Amino acid sequence: MEETKNGTTMVVFDGDLDKAIASFIIATGAAAMGKNVTMFFTFWGLNVLRKDNVISGSDKTMMEKMFGKMMPRGPEKLALSKMNFGGMGPKMMKKMMKNHNVSSLKEMIEMAQDLDVKMVACTMSMDVMGLKEEELIDGLDYAGVASYLAEAEESNINLFI
Amino acid sequence: MEETKNGTTMVVFDGDLDKAIASFIIATGAAAMGKNVTMFFTFWGLNVLRKDNVISGSDKTMMEKMFGKMMPRGPEKLALSKMNFGGMGPKMMKKMMKNHNVSSLKEMIEMAQDLDVKMVACTMSMDVMGLKEEELIDGLDYAGVASYLAEAEESNINLFI
Amino acid sequence: MEETKNGTTMVVFDGDLDKAIASFIIATGAAAMGKNVTMFFTFWGLNVLRKDNVISGSDKTMMEKMFGKMMPRGPEKLALSKMNFGGMGPKMMKKMMKNHNVSSLKEMIEMAQDLDVKMVACTMSMDVMGLKEEELIDGLDYAGVASYLAEAEESNINLFI
Repeated sequence: MEETKNGTTMVVFDGDLDKAIASFIIATGAAAMGKNVTMFFTFWGLNVLRKDNVISGSDKTMMEKMFGKMMPRGPEKLALSKMNFGGMGPKMMKKMMKNHNVSSLKEMIEMAQDLDVKMVACTMSMDVMGLKEEELIDGLDYAGVASYLAEAEESNINLFI
Repeated sequence: MEETKNGTTMVVFDGDLDKAIASFIIATGAAAMGKNVTMFFTFWGLNVLRKDNVISGSDKTMMEKMFGKMMPRGPEKLALSKMNFGGMGPKMMKKMMKNHNVSSLKEMIEMAQDLDVKMVACTMSMDVMGLKEEELIDGLDYAGVASYLAEAEESNINLFI
Repeated sequence: MEETKNGTTMVVFDGDLDKAIASFIIATGAAAMGKNVTMFFTFWGLNVLRKDNVISGSDKTMMEKMFGKMMPRGPEKLALSKMNFGGMGPKMMKKMMKNHNVSSLKEMIEMAQDLDVKMVACTMSMDVMGLKEEELIDGLDYAGVASYLAEAEESNINLFI
């Protein structure tokens, strides 16, 4: 095969506000340049995709409910990986981004979806952490590690964030 | 050279339970798909490979002994990168993995070795952190950054975890 | 295109002492093997490039001044990602590196510049965090994500650290 690979994949593992922003800046940038971009959300990265409202009446175990309660619900609730200061850091970061006309994470996610960035939620992580499809935003794909590896194989840029 | 590269390499730097699990899921998945997988363990990542018993009588400096004592010994002792809660988090995570029939990290490491995943301990990190070969599990390779870069060159998927 | 790609790129996001050391060991190793190496410093990674003296008289907002004060100034001030113990960890790490004749981070940065490693400061991150060019070391390039993606496209090894 001589054709150049045209994919960019990212494993979004961390789920901190700053790392999530970095991953969406790369994703939307690459998509705008015509690349096929796939973001694979796993472990804490799934928190980036959570809706901010509580989903009631789901069949979760006690432990899954606890985990679900303690983990942040969506882009507005994420912490910084450094200088978080109990939530002061993210507030400052968001203010400073706004001052410089940088889109918010929520806007970046929408932009990524408009640019056909493929956003995949890792089903094994969802099982382990007790997250249900109805807790996550719309427009996602659901798959496991084999699917990630197949996409990564077709990509020139592969990052773990 | 037209042949497709068939390698997958990972630098396992972090040594947290969750990131170690993610790296072994990718490693065993890629190996099962026929890829040549190399994991290069460096810095805190070396803790994933430590035996859980104390090795006595080695010629360590005071500082190396201190470092060795404070760092976790092997897969059962690793912390989570988030929501660790003094060890409660890892216990919950392990329970939730078991509930969903996900292998434990220890089992994943054995599986990786059965699948001929090449596990390399970074000798420079071992020197700096005062870790000796007899403290690490059997079946490892020992090498430095040049060896990592040579493998990475033959790989299509390169991750830093 | 049949020619083999000869680049190595790293996004240096984290800015912890240990991760910075790892990134410069890979960068100088790859450069010594004849690769075109580009390091793209973004978010906390920019702190690796800060001069250690305070720059006065710049036109920063109150919030930018606060951020600037709280973030570490250059390689001597960085924390460890683990076992930092309020600064004791980095001191021990530096001592243990010296004992084993491993170069200091500051020396590695100089070595990277001698080996023509291209060091790029992310201008969007600088804007958001209020960092000015005169606060960073000499010899840097300044660019955004599109420039990073173009380099990554020409690289076989792409890491996010």
